[in-house]
Amino acid sequence: MHLSDAERQGIGAGSIIRRKEEGGFECVTDEVAIEEPLEIRVGAEPLAVTMRTPGNDEELAAGFLLSEGIVRTRTDLKEIAHCTLPASLGNVLNTTLAPTVKFTPASAQRFGTISSSCGLCGKTSIEFLRQQFPAVDLSAQLQIREATLLGLPARLRSAQGNFARTGGIHAAGIFDLEGNLLLLREDIGRHNAVDKVIGRAFLDGLLPLRHHILMVSGRSSLEIVQKALAAGIPIVAAVSAPSSLAVNFARECGQTLIGFLRPPTFNVYSHVERVALDP
Amino acid sequence: MHLSDAERQGIGAGSIIRRKEEGGFECVTDEVAIEEPLEIRVGAEPLAVTMRTPGNDEELAAGFLLSEGIVRTRTDLKEIAHCTLPASLGNVLNTTLAPTVKFTPASAQRFGTISSSCGLCGKTSIEFLRQQFPAVDLSAQLQIREATLLGLPARLRSAQGNFARTGGIHAAGIFDLEGNLLLLREDIGRHNAVDKVIGRAFLDGLLPLRHHILMVSGRSSLEIVQKALAAGIPIVAAVSAPSSLAVNFARECGQTLIGFLRPPTFNVYSHVERVALDP
Repeated sequence: MHLSDAERQGIGAGSIIRRKEEGGFECVTDEVAIEEPLEIRVGAEPLAVTMRTPGNDEELAAGFLLSEGIVRTRTDLKEIAHCTLPASLGNVLNTTLAPTVKFTPASAQRFGTISSSCGLCGKTSIEFLRQQFPAVDLSAQLQIREATLLGLPARLRSAQGNFARTGGIHAAGIFDLEGNLLLLREDIGRHNAVDKVIGRAFLDGLLPLRHHILMVSGRSSLEIVQKALAAGIPIVAAVSAPSSLAVNFARECGQTLIGFLRPPTFNVYSHVERVALDP
Repeated sequence: MHLSDAERQGIGAGSIIRRKEEGGFECVTDEVAIEEPLEIRVGAEPLAVTMRTPGNDEELAAGFLLSEGIVRTRTDLKEIAHCTLPASLGNVLNTTLAPTVKFTPASAQRFGTISSSCGLCGKTSIEFLRQQFPAVDLSAQLQIREATLLGLPARLRSAQGNFARTGGIHAAGIFDLEGNLLLLREDIGRHNAVDKVIGRAFLDGLLPLRHHILMVSGRSSLEIVQKALAAGIPIVAAVSAPSSLAVNFARECGQTLIGFLRPPTFNVYSHVERVALDP
Protein backbone atom coordinates (compact mmCIF):
# COMPACT_ATOMS: atom_id res chain seq x y z
CA MET A 1 0.00 0.00 0.00
CA HIS A 2 1.70 3.18 -1.15
CA LEU A 3 0.88 6.25 0.87
CA SER A 4 1.05 9.83 -0.31
CA ASP A 5 2.62 12.48 1.90
CA ALA A 6 -0.82 13.63 2.96
CA GLU A 7 -1.75 10.11 3.89
CA ARG A 8 1.47 9.79 5.88
CA GLN A 9 0.15 12.69 7.92
CA GLY A 10 -2.74 10.53 8.90
CA ILE A 11 -5.54 11.47 6.55
CA GLY A 12 -6.81 9.63 3.52
CA ALA A 13 -9.48 10.88 1.15
CA GLY A 14 -12.05 9.01 -0.88
CA SER A 15 -15.48 9.36 -2.42
CA ILE A 16 -18.35 8.32 -0.21
CA ILE A 17 -22.11 8.65 -0.15
CA ARG A 18 -23.64 10.90 2.48
CA ARG A 19 -27.27 11.12 3.51
CA LYS A 20 -28.26 14.77 3.64
CA GLU A 21 -30.09 16.24 6.62
CA GLU A 22 -33.06 17.15 4.47
CA GLY A 23 -33.13 13.67 2.96
CA GLY A 24 -31.62 12.34 -0.24
CA PHE A 25 -28.02 11.43 -0.90
CA GLU A 26 -24.95 13.20 -2.24
CA CYS A 27 -21.56 11.96 -3.26
CA VAL A 28 -18.81 13.78 -1.39
CA THR A 29 -15.10 13.48 -0.73
CA ASP A 30 -14.52 12.36 2.81
CA GLU A 31 -11.40 12.02 4.89
CA VAL A 32 -10.68 9.05 7.07
CA ALA A 33 -7.96 8.45 9.61
CA ILE A 34 -5.15 6.27 8.35
CA GLU A 35 -4.64 2.97 10.15
CA GLU A 36 -1.45 1.05 9.34
CA PRO A 37 0.56 -1.53 11.26
CA LEU A 38 3.97 -0.73 12.70
CA GLU A 39 6.31 -3.53 13.62
CA ILE A 40 8.79 -2.51 16.30
CA ARG A 41 11.95 -4.59 16.33
CA VAL A 42 14.64 -4.77 18.98
CA GLY A 43 17.82 -5.86 17.26
CA ALA A 44 16.57 -8.32 14.70
CA GLU A 45 13.66 -9.55 16.86
CA PRO A 46 10.09 -8.35 16.33
CA LEU A 47 8.86 -7.06 19.69
CA ALA A 48 5.37 -5.82 18.90
CA VAL A 49 3.05 -4.80 16.12
CA THR A 50 0.74 -1.89 16.76
CA MET A 51 -1.96 -0.44 14.54
CA ARG A 52 -1.09 3.21 14.34
CA THR A 53 -1.50 6.35 12.28
CA PRO A 54 1.78 6.76 10.37
CA GLY A 55 4.07 9.58 11.43
CA ASN A 56 6.35 10.14 14.43
CA ASP A 57 7.10 6.43 14.44
CA GLU A 58 10.44 6.90 16.21
CA GLU A 59 8.62 8.63 19.07
CA LEU A 60 6.06 5.87 19.22
CA ALA A 61 8.77 3.20 19.44
CA ALA A 62 10.71 5.13 22.08
CA GLY A 63 7.57 5.64 24.16
CA PHE A 64 6.64 1.99 23.80
CA LEU A 65 10.08 0.76 24.88
CA LEU A 66 9.97 3.17 27.81
CA SER A 67 6.52 2.15 29.01
CA GLU A 68 7.45 -1.52 28.63
CA GLY A 69 10.40 -0.92 30.93
CA ILE A 70 12.91 -1.97 28.28
CA VAL A 71 14.69 1.38 28.24
CA ARG A 72 14.87 3.76 31.19
CA THR A 73 17.32 6.49 30.30
CA ARG A 74 18.10 8.21 27.01
CA THR A 75 21.44 6.45 26.70
CA ASP A 76 19.73 3.03 26.86
CA LEU A 77 18.43 3.60 23.33
CA LYS A 78 21.21 3.73 20.79
CA GLU A 79 19.40 3.99 17.51
CA ILE A 80 15.96 4.02 15.91
CA ALA A 81 15.54 3.78 12.16
CA HIS A 82 12.95 2.65 9.67
CA CYS A 83 13.78 -0.51 7.81
CA THR A 84 14.96 0.60 4.39
CA LEU A 85 13.76 -2.45 2.48
CA PRO A 86 11.03 -1.36 0.04
CA ALA A 87 8.91 -4.34 1.10
CA SER A 88 8.61 -2.93 4.61
CA LEU A 89 6.57 -0.02 3.21
CA GLY A 90 7.73 2.23 6.02
CA ASN A 91 5.97 0.00 8.51
CA VAL A 92 8.99 -1.60 10.18
CA LEU A 93 11.15 0.20 12.71
CA ASN A 94 14.49 -1.16 13.91
CA THR A 95 15.71 -0.16 17.35
CA THR A 96 19.13 -0.82 18.82
CA LEU A 97 19.68 -0.88 22.57
CA ALA A 98 22.92 0.09 24.28
CA PRO A 99 25.08 -2.98 25.01
CA THR A 100 24.64 -2.33 28.74
CA VAL A 101 20.86 -2.84 28.58
CA LYS A 102 19.74 -6.23 29.78
CA PHE A 103 16.99 -7.39 27.47
CA THR A 104 15.68 -10.89 27.03
CA PRO A 105 12.80 -11.18 24.58
CA ALA A 106 11.15 -13.81 26.79
CA SER A 107 10.80 -11.49 29.78
CA ALA A 108 9.77 -8.67 27.50
CA GLN A 109 7.03 -10.84 26.11
CA ARG A 110 5.69 -11.37 29.59
CA PHE A 111 5.77 -7.66 30.13
CA GLY A 112 5.15 -6.71 26.53
CA THR A 113 1.49 -7.62 26.52
CA ILE A 114 0.73 -4.58 28.68
CA SER A 115 -0.69 -2.38 25.97
CA SER A 116 -3.44 -4.76 25.03
CA SER A 117 -3.60 -6.52 28.37
CA CYS A 118 -1.87 -6.49 31.69
CA GLY A 119 -1.01 -10.09 32.40
CA LEU A 120 -3.03 -12.57 34.29
CA CYS A 121 -4.56 -10.71 37.19
CA GLY A 122 -5.15 -7.02 37.61
CA LYS A 123 -3.85 -6.89 41.13
CA THR A 124 -0.78 -8.98 40.44
CA SER A 125 -0.01 -6.84 37.43
CA ILE A 126 -0.41 -3.61 39.34
CA GLU A 127 2.08 -4.90 41.88
CA PHE A 128 4.35 -5.97 39.07
CA LEU A 129 4.12 -2.57 37.40
CA ARG A 130 4.73 -0.79 40.68
CA GLN A 131 7.97 -2.67 41.01
CA GLN A 132 8.95 -1.58 37.51
CA PHE A 133 8.33 2.10 38.00
CA PRO A 134 8.66 4.18 41.15
CA ALA A 135 5.44 5.63 42.51
CA VAL A 136 4.98 9.38 42.27
CA ASP A 137 6.65 11.27 45.11
CA LEU A 138 3.81 12.42 47.35
CA SER A 139 6.01 14.77 49.35
CA ALA A 140 6.62 17.09 46.40
CA GLN A 141 3.36 18.94 47.12
CA LEU A 142 2.92 20.21 43.61
CA GLN A 143 -0.49 21.52 42.66
CA ILE A 144 -2.53 22.52 39.66
CA ARG A 145 -5.05 25.33 39.89
CA GLU A 146 -8.68 24.48 39.30
CA ALA A 147 -8.95 27.18 36.61
CA THR A 148 -5.86 25.86 34.82
CA LEU A 149 -7.31 22.37 34.77
CA LEU A 150 -10.62 23.64 33.37
CA GLY A 151 -8.73 25.34 30.56
CA LEU A 152 -6.89 22.26 29.31
CA PRO A 153 -9.57 20.71 27.05
CA ALA A 154 -9.95 23.89 24.99
CA ARG A 155 -6.19 24.24 24.67
CA LEU A 156 -5.86 20.64 23.52
CA ARG A 157 -8.70 20.99 21.00
CA SER A 158 -7.45 24.26 19.54
CA ALA A 159 -4.03 22.71 18.96
CA GLN A 160 -5.55 19.78 17.06
CA GLY A 161 -6.28 19.96 13.38
CA ASN A 162 -9.81 20.38 12.10
CA PHE A 163 -9.89 16.81 10.94
CA ALA A 164 -8.77 15.39 14.25
CA ARG A 165 -11.43 17.35 16.08
CA THR A 166 -14.24 15.98 13.99
CA GLY A 167 -12.92 12.76 12.54
CA GLY A 168 -12.15 10.85 15.66
CA ILE A 169 -8.39 10.74 16.01
CA HIS A 170 -7.18 10.51 19.60
CA ALA A 171 -5.00 13.26 21.00
CA ALA A 172 -2.53 13.22 23.86
CA GLY A 173 -0.93 16.37 25.22
CA ILE A 174 1.66 17.16 27.83
CA PHE A 175 1.06 20.39 29.74
CA ASP A 176 3.06 22.12 32.43
CA LEU A 177 1.39 23.12 35.70
CA GLU A 178 0.61 26.57 34.29
CA GLY A 179 -1.44 24.95 31.54
CA ASN A 180 1.02 25.53 28.69
CA LEU A 181 0.88 22.85 26.04
CA LEU A 182 4.38 21.49 25.48
CA LEU A 183 3.68 18.52 23.21
CA LEU A 184 0.71 17.24 21.24
CA ARG A 185 0.45 14.06 19.24
CA GLU A 186 -2.49 12.40 17.51
CA ASP A 187 -3.13 8.82 16.53
CA ILE A 188 -5.97 6.46 15.77
CA GLY A 189 -4.90 4.53 18.88
CA ARG A 190 -5.05 6.36 22.19
CA HIS A 191 -2.10 4.40 23.58
CA ASN A 192 -0.06 5.27 20.48
CA ALA A 193 -0.74 8.99 20.94
CA VAL A 194 0.51 8.68 24.53
CA ASP A 195 3.57 6.70 23.45
CA LYS A 196 4.36 9.42 20.93
CA VAL A 197 4.29 12.29 23.45
CA ILE A 198 6.25 10.48 26.14
CA GLY A 199 8.58 9.09 23.47
CA ARG A 200 9.33 12.61 22.21
CA ALA A 201 10.06 13.76 25.75
CA PHE A 202 12.25 10.71 26.28
CA LEU A 203 14.22 11.32 23.09
CA ASP A 204 14.74 14.94 24.09
CA GLY A 205 16.07 13.91 27.50
CA LEU A 206 13.20 15.62 29.36
CA LEU A 207 12.24 12.73 31.64
CA PRO A 208 11.05 12.41 34.34
CA LEU A 209 8.19 14.85 33.77
CA ARG A 210 7.64 15.49 37.46
CA HIS A 211 5.81 18.81 37.07
CA HIS A 212 3.56 17.94 34.18
CA ILE A 213 0.10 16.76 33.23
CA LEU A 214 -0.82 14.18 30.63
CA MET A 215 -4.15 14.91 29.00
CA VAL A 216 -5.96 12.50 26.67
CA SER A 217 -8.98 13.23 24.52
CA GLY A 218 -10.82 9.99 25.32
CA ARG A 219 -10.90 7.55 28.20
CA SER A 220 -8.19 6.45 30.57
CA SER A 221 -7.63 2.74 30.91
CA LEU A 222 -4.78 1.06 32.77
CA GLU A 223 -2.26 1.50 29.98
CA ILE A 224 -2.68 5.28 29.92
CA VAL A 225 -1.90 5.85 33.60
CA GLN A 226 0.87 3.24 33.45
CA LYS A 227 2.55 4.97 30.51
CA ALA A 228 2.26 8.30 32.35
CA LEU A 229 3.96 6.75 35.38
CA ALA A 230 6.76 5.40 33.20
CA ALA A 231 7.42 9.02 32.21
CA GLY A 232 7.16 10.19 35.84
CA ILE A 233 3.97 12.19 35.23
CA PRO A 234 2.01 12.84 38.45
CA ILE A 235 -1.31 14.06 36.99
CA VAL A 236 -3.45 12.42 34.28
CA ALA A 237 -6.58 14.09 32.92
CA ALA A 238 -9.07 12.63 30.46
CA VAL A 239 -12.15 13.97 28.72
CA SER A 240 -14.00 10.70 29.29
CA ALA A 241 -14.30 7.92 31.85
CA PRO A 242 -11.53 5.99 33.56
CA SER A 243 -11.57 2.23 34.00
CA SER A 244 -11.53 0.50 37.37
CA LEU A 245 -7.93 -0.62 36.93
CA ALA A 246 -6.84 2.89 35.97
CA VAL A 247 -8.40 4.25 39.18
CA ASN A 248 -6.83 1.56 41.35
CA PHE A 249 -3.44 1.98 39.71
CA ALA A 250 -3.46 5.77 40.10
CA ARG A 251 -4.47 5.50 43.77
CA GLU A 252 -1.73 3.01 44.53
CA CYS A 253 0.96 4.77 42.51
CA GLY A 254 0.35 8.26 43.84
CA GLN A 255 -1.08 9.74 40.63
CA THR A 256 -3.87 12.28 40.46
CA LEU A 257 -6.45 10.93 38.01
CA ILE A 258 -9.06 13.28 36.60
CA GLY A 259 -11.91 12.12 34.40
CA PHE A 260 -14.86 13.65 32.56
CA LEU A 261 -12.93 16.90 32.32
CA ARG A 262 -15.73 18.83 30.67
CA PRO A 263 -15.86 22.39 31.97
CA PRO A 264 -17.35 23.53 34.25
CA THR A 265 -17.17 20.09 35.87
CA PHE A 266 -14.71 17.26 36.32
CA ASN A 267 -14.18 14.23 38.57
CA VAL A 268 -11.13 13.52 40.67
CA TYR A 269 -10.61 9.81 41.22
CA SER A 270 -7.39 9.90 43.21
CA HIS A 271 -5.04 12.23 45.08
CA VAL A 272 -7.26 15.30 45.05
CA GLU A 273 -4.68 17.12 47.18
CA ARG A 274 -2.93 18.22 43.98
CA VAL A 275 -5.96 20.23 42.83
CA ALA A 276 -5.77 23.76 44.26
CA LEU A 277 -9.18 25.36 44.78
CA ASP A 278 -9.60 28.77 43.27
CA PRO A 279 -10.27 31.49 45.80
CA MET B 1 -8.74 -8.79 43.33
CA HIS B 2 -12.06 -10.12 44.55
CA LEU B 3 -15.08 -8.88 42.63
CA SER B 4 -18.61 -8.63 43.91
CA ASP B 5 -21.46 -9.83 41.75
CA ALA B 6 -22.25 -6.24 40.83
CA GLU B 7 -18.66 -5.71 39.80
CA ARG B 8 -18.79 -8.89 37.73
CA GLN B 9 -21.58 -7.18 35.82
CA GLY B 10 -19.13 -4.51 34.85
CA ILE B 11 -19.66 -1.69 37.30
CA GLY B 12 -17.58 -0.75 40.30
CA ALA B 13 -18.43 2.00 42.76
CA GLY B 14 -16.17 4.24 44.81
CA SER B 15 -16.04 7.66 46.43
CA ILE B 16 -14.70 10.41 44.26
CA ILE B 17 -14.52 14.19 44.30
CA ARG B 18 -16.62 16.08 41.76
CA ARG B 19 -16.38 19.72 40.83
CA LYS B 20 -19.87 21.19 40.82
CA GLU B 21 -21.14 23.28 37.94
CA GLU B 22 -21.64 26.28 40.19
CA GLY B 23 -18.11 25.83 41.60
CA GLY B 24 -16.90 24.07 44.72
CA PHE B 25 -16.48 20.38 45.26
CA GLU B 26 -18.59 17.54 46.56
CA CYS B 27 -17.78 13.98 47.47
CA VAL B 28 -20.00 11.54 45.59
CA THR B 29 -20.21 7.87 44.85
CA ASP B 30 -19.26 7.23 41.27
CA GLU B 31 -19.38 4.15 39.10
CA VAL B 32 -16.59 3.10 36.81
CA ALA B 33 -16.44 0.40 34.17
CA ILE B 34 -14.60 -2.71 35.30
CA GLU B 35 -11.45 -3.59 33.39
CA GLU B 36 -9.93 -7.01 34.07
CA PRO B 37 -7.68 -9.30 32.05
CA LEU B 38 -8.97 -12.51 30.54
CA GLU B 39 -6.52 -15.18 29.48
CA ILE B 40 -7.94 -17.43 26.77
CA ARG B 41 -6.30 -20.85 26.59
CA VAL B 42 -6.56 -23.47 23.87
CA GLY B 43 -5.84 -26.80 25.50
CA ALA B 44 -3.18 -25.94 28.01
CA GLU B 45 -1.64 -23.18 25.89
CA PRO B 46 -2.30 -19.50 26.53
CA LEU B 47 -3.52 -18.01 23.24
CA ALA B 48 -4.27 -14.41 24.14
CA VAL B 49 -4.90 -12.06 27.02
CA THR B 50 -7.50 -9.36 26.52
CA MET B 51 -8.52 -6.55 28.84
CA ARG B 52 -12.25 -6.95 29.13
CA THR B 53 -15.25 -6.19 31.28
CA PRO B 54 -16.04 -9.44 33.12
CA GLY B 55 -19.17 -11.30 32.09
CA ASN B 56 -20.10 -13.40 29.06
CA ASP B 57 -16.53 -14.63 28.94
CA GLU B 58 -17.47 -17.82 27.08
CA GLU B 59 -19.03 -15.72 24.33
CA LEU B 60 -15.95 -13.55 24.16
CA ALA B 61 -13.68 -16.57 23.81
CA ALA B 62 -15.91 -18.16 21.17
CA GLY B 63 -16.05 -14.93 19.18
CA PHE B 64 -12.31 -14.50 19.46
CA LEU B 65 -11.58 -18.05 18.26
CA LEU B 66 -14.02 -17.53 15.40
CA SER B 67 -12.58 -14.22 14.25
CA GLU B 68 -9.05 -15.63 14.50
CA GLY B 69 -10.10 -18.42 12.15
CA ILE B 70 -9.33 -21.12 14.70
CA VAL B 71 -12.90 -22.45 14.81
CA ARG B 72 -15.33 -22.23 11.92
CA THR B 73 -18.34 -24.32 12.84
CA ARG B 74 -20.07 -24.94 16.15
CA THR B 75 -18.76 -28.50 16.35
CA ASP B 76 -15.16 -27.25 16.12
CA LEU B 77 -15.46 -26.00 19.69
CA LYS B 78 -15.90 -28.81 22.16
CA GLU B 79 -15.84 -27.06 25.50
CA ILE B 80 -15.34 -23.69 27.17
CA ALA B 81 -14.96 -23.40 30.92
CA HIS B 82 -13.42 -21.05 33.44
CA CYS B 83 -10.35 -22.36 35.19
CA THR B 84 -11.51 -23.48 38.62
CA LEU B 85 -8.28 -22.72 40.46
CA PRO B 86 -8.93 -19.94 43.00
CA ALA B 87 -5.73 -18.19 41.90
CA SER B 88 -7.19 -17.64 38.45
CA LEU B 89 -9.76 -15.25 39.96
CA GLY B 90 -12.22 -16.04 37.21
CA ASN B 91 -9.84 -14.52 34.69
CA VAL B 92 -8.71 -17.68 32.90
CA LEU B 93 -10.84 -19.52 30.37
CA ASN B 94 -9.96 -22.98 29.06
CA THR B 95 -11.21 -23.95 25.62
CA THR B 96 -11.06 -27.39 24.05
CA LEU B 97 -11.17 -27.84 20.30
CA ALA B 98 -12.61 -30.88 18.54
CA PRO B 99 -9.88 -33.40 17.66
CA THR B 100 -10.56 -32.78 13.97
CA VAL B 101 -9.54 -29.11 14.20
CA LYS B 102 -6.05 -28.41 12.94
CA PHE B 103 -4.51 -25.91 15.27
CA THR B 104 -0.84 -25.08 15.63
CA PRO B 105 -0.12 -22.32 18.11
CA ALA B 106 2.65 -20.97 15.87
CA SER B 107 0.33 -20.28 12.95
CA ALA B 108 -2.28 -18.91 15.32
CA GLN B 109 0.26 -16.50 16.67
CA ARG B 110 0.90 -15.20 13.20
CA PHE B 111 -2.81 -14.80 12.74
CA GLY B 112 -3.57 -14.08 16.36
CA THR B 113 -2.15 -10.61 16.39
CA ILE B 114 -5.11 -9.41 14.31
CA SER B 115 -7.10 -7.83 17.10
CA SER B 116 -4.39 -5.42 18.12
CA SER B 117 -2.68 -5.34 14.75
CA CYS B 118 -2.97 -6.92 11.37
CA GLY B 119 0.46 -8.23 10.56
CA LEU B 120 3.12 -6.46 8.63
CA CYS B 121 1.38 -4.65 5.84
CA GLY B 122 -2.21 -3.59 5.59
CA LYS B 123 -2.63 -4.76 2.05
CA THR B 124 -0.94 -8.09 2.59
CA SER B 125 -3.03 -8.68 5.65
CA ILE B 126 -6.24 -7.82 3.88
CA GLU B 127 -5.39 -10.37 1.23
CA PHE B 128 -4.52 -12.85 3.95
CA LEU B 129 -7.81 -12.23 5.74
CA ARG B 130 -9.74 -12.50 2.52
CA GLN B 131 -8.32 -15.95 2.04
CA GLN B 132 -9.41 -16.88 5.54
CA PHE B 133 -13.00 -15.77 5.21
CA PRO B 134 -15.18 -15.73 2.12
CA ALA B 135 -16.24 -12.30 0.90
CA VAL B 136 -19.88 -11.37 1.24
CA ASP B 137 -22.05 -12.67 -1.58
CA LEU B 138 -22.87 -9.64 -3.70
CA SER B 139 -25.52 -11.48 -5.69
CA ALA B 140 -27.83 -11.88 -2.69
CA GLN B 141 -29.23 -8.38 -3.26
CA LEU B 142 -30.35 -7.87 0.30
CA GLN B 143 -31.18 -4.34 1.35
CA ILE B 144 -31.84 -2.28 4.43
CA ARG B 145 -34.28 0.60 4.33
CA GLU B 146 -32.95 4.07 4.99
CA ALA B 147 -35.51 4.61 7.76
CA THR B 148 -34.57 1.34 9.44
CA LEU B 149 -30.93 2.32 9.42
CA LEU B 150 -31.71 5.71 10.94
CA GLY B 151 -33.58 3.99 13.75
CA LEU B 152 -30.73 1.73 14.86
CA PRO B 153 -28.80 4.11 17.15
CA ALA B 154 -31.85 4.85 19.30
CA ARG B 155 -32.67 1.17 19.54
CA LEU B 156 -29.13 0.32 20.58
CA ARG B 157 -29.05 3.10 23.18
CA SER B 158 -32.40 2.26 24.70
CA ALA B 159 -31.31 -1.35 25.15
CA GLN B 160 -28.16 -0.30 27.00
CA GLY B 161 -28.14 0.36 30.72
CA ASN B 162 -28.05 3.87 32.11
CA PHE B 163 -24.46 3.44 33.15
CA ALA B 164 -23.31 2.24 29.78
CA ARG B 165 -24.97 5.17 28.07
CA THR B 166 -23.18 7.74 30.18
CA GLY B 167 -20.12 5.98 31.51
CA GLY B 168 -18.43 5.06 28.31
CA ILE B 169 -18.79 1.33 27.85
CA HIS B 170 -18.81 0.20 24.23
CA ALA B 171 -21.86 -1.57 22.86
CA ALA B 172 -22.22 -3.95 19.94
CA GLY B 173 -25.59 -5.06 18.64
CA ILE B 174 -26.78 -7.46 15.99
CA PHE B 175 -29.94 -6.40 14.19
CA ASP B 176 -31.98 -8.06 11.50
CA LEU B 177 -32.84 -6.19 8.30
CA GLU B 178 -36.13 -5.00 9.82
CA GLY B 179 -34.18 -3.28 12.58
CA ASN B 180 -35.01 -5.71 15.37
CA LEU B 181 -32.26 -6.00 17.95
CA LEU B 182 -31.36 -9.66 18.39
CA LEU B 183 -28.28 -9.42 20.59
CA LEU B 184 -26.57 -6.70 22.59
CA ARG B 185 -23.32 -6.91 24.51
CA GLU B 186 -21.25 -4.27 26.26
CA ASP B 187 -17.59 -4.13 27.15
CA ILE B 188 -14.86 -1.65 27.91
CA GLY B 189 -13.18 -2.88 24.73
CA ARG B 190 -15.03 -2.41 21.47
CA HIS B 191 -13.52 -5.55 19.96
CA ASN B 192 -14.58 -7.53 23.03
CA ALA B 193 -18.17 -6.36 22.69
CA VAL B 194 -18.14 -7.52 19.08
CA ASP B 195 -16.55 -10.85 20.02
CA LYS B 196 -19.29 -11.35 22.59
CA VAL B 197 -22.19 -10.84 20.16
CA ILE B 198 -20.72 -12.94 17.38
CA GLY B 199 -19.59 -15.51 19.95
CA ARG B 200 -23.14 -15.82 21.29
CA ALA B 201 -24.47 -16.28 17.76
CA PHE B 202 -21.75 -18.85 17.09
CA LEU B 203 -22.53 -20.80 20.25
CA ASP B 204 -26.22 -20.81 19.34
CA GLY B 205 -25.46 -22.17 15.87
CA LEU B 206 -26.81 -19.05 14.14
CA LEU B 207 -23.88 -18.44 11.80
CA PRO B 208 -23.48 -17.20 9.11
CA LEU B 209 -25.51 -14.06 9.82
CA ARG B 210 -26.16 -13.34 6.17
CA HIS B 211 -29.19 -11.09 6.71
CA HIS B 212 -27.96 -9.07 9.63
CA ILE B 213 -26.31 -5.82 10.61
CA LEU B 214 -23.57 -5.32 13.16
CA MET B 215 -23.82 -1.96 14.89
CA VAL B 216 -21.13 -0.55 17.20
CA SER B 217 -21.40 2.47 19.44
CA GLY B 218 -17.97 3.88 18.59
CA ARG B 219 -15.62 3.73 15.65
CA SER B 220 -14.93 0.98 13.19
CA SER B 221 -11.33 -0.07 12.73
CA LEU B 222 -10.09 -3.06 10.76
CA GLU B 223 -10.79 -5.57 13.49
CA ILE B 224 -14.47 -4.66 13.67
CA VAL B 225 -15.24 -5.27 9.99
CA GLN B 226 -13.02 -8.35 9.99
CA LYS B 227 -14.89 -9.88 12.94
CA ALA B 228 -18.17 -9.09 11.20
CA LEU B 229 -16.95 -10.89 8.09
CA ALA B 230 -15.93 -13.91 10.15
CA ALA B 231 -19.57 -14.11 11.23
CA GLY B 232 -20.80 -13.61 7.65
CA ILE B 233 -22.35 -10.19 8.40
CA PRO B 234 -22.81 -8.07 5.24
CA ILE B 235 -23.54 -4.66 6.83
CA VAL B 236 -21.58 -2.85 9.53
CA ALA B 237 -22.78 0.45 11.01
CA ALA B 238 -20.94 2.65 13.49
CA VAL B 239 -21.81 5.83 15.35
CA SER B 240 -18.35 7.25 14.73
CA ALA B 241 -15.61 7.25 12.10
CA PRO B 242 -14.11 4.30 10.28
CA SER B 243 -10.39 3.86 9.72
CA SER B 244 -8.77 3.69 6.30
CA LEU B 245 -8.13 -0.04 6.61
CA ALA B 246 -11.72 -0.70 7.64
CA VAL B 247 -12.95 1.13 4.53
CA ASN B 248 -10.54 -0.73 2.24
CA PHE B 249 -11.36 -4.08 3.79
CA ALA B 250 -15.13 -3.54 3.51
CA ARG B 251 -14.83 -2.47 -0.12
CA GLU B 252 -12.74 -5.50 -1.04
CA CYS B 253 -14.78 -7.98 0.96
CA GLY B 254 -18.20 -6.89 -0.23
CA GLN B 255 -19.38 -5.37 3.04
CA THR B 256 -21.52 -2.27 3.35
CA LEU B 257 -19.80 0.04 5.83
CA ILE B 258 -21.74 2.90 7.36
CA GLY B 259 -20.17 5.51 9.61
CA PHE B 260 -21.25 8.59 11.56
CA LEU B 261 -24.71 7.09 11.85
CA ARG B 262 -26.24 10.08 13.63
CA PRO B 263 -29.76 10.71 12.43
CA PRO B 264 -30.74 12.41 10.21
CA THR B 265 -27.40 11.81 8.49
CA PHE B 266 -24.93 9.02 7.89
CA ASN B 267 -22.06 8.15 5.57
CA VAL B 268 -21.82 5.09 3.37
CA TYR B 269 -18.22 4.11 2.69
CA SER B 270 -18.79 0.98 0.63
CA HIS B 271 -21.45 -0.99 -1.24
CA VAL B 272 -24.19 1.62 -1.06
CA GLU B 273 -26.39 -0.65 -3.20
CA ARG B 274 -27.64 -2.32 -0.02
CA VAL B 275 -29.19 0.91 1.25
CA ALA B 276 -32.74 1.23 -0.06
CA LEU B 277 -33.89 4.81 -0.47
CA ASP B 278 -37.19 5.64 1.15
CA PRO B 279 -39.86 6.74 -1.28
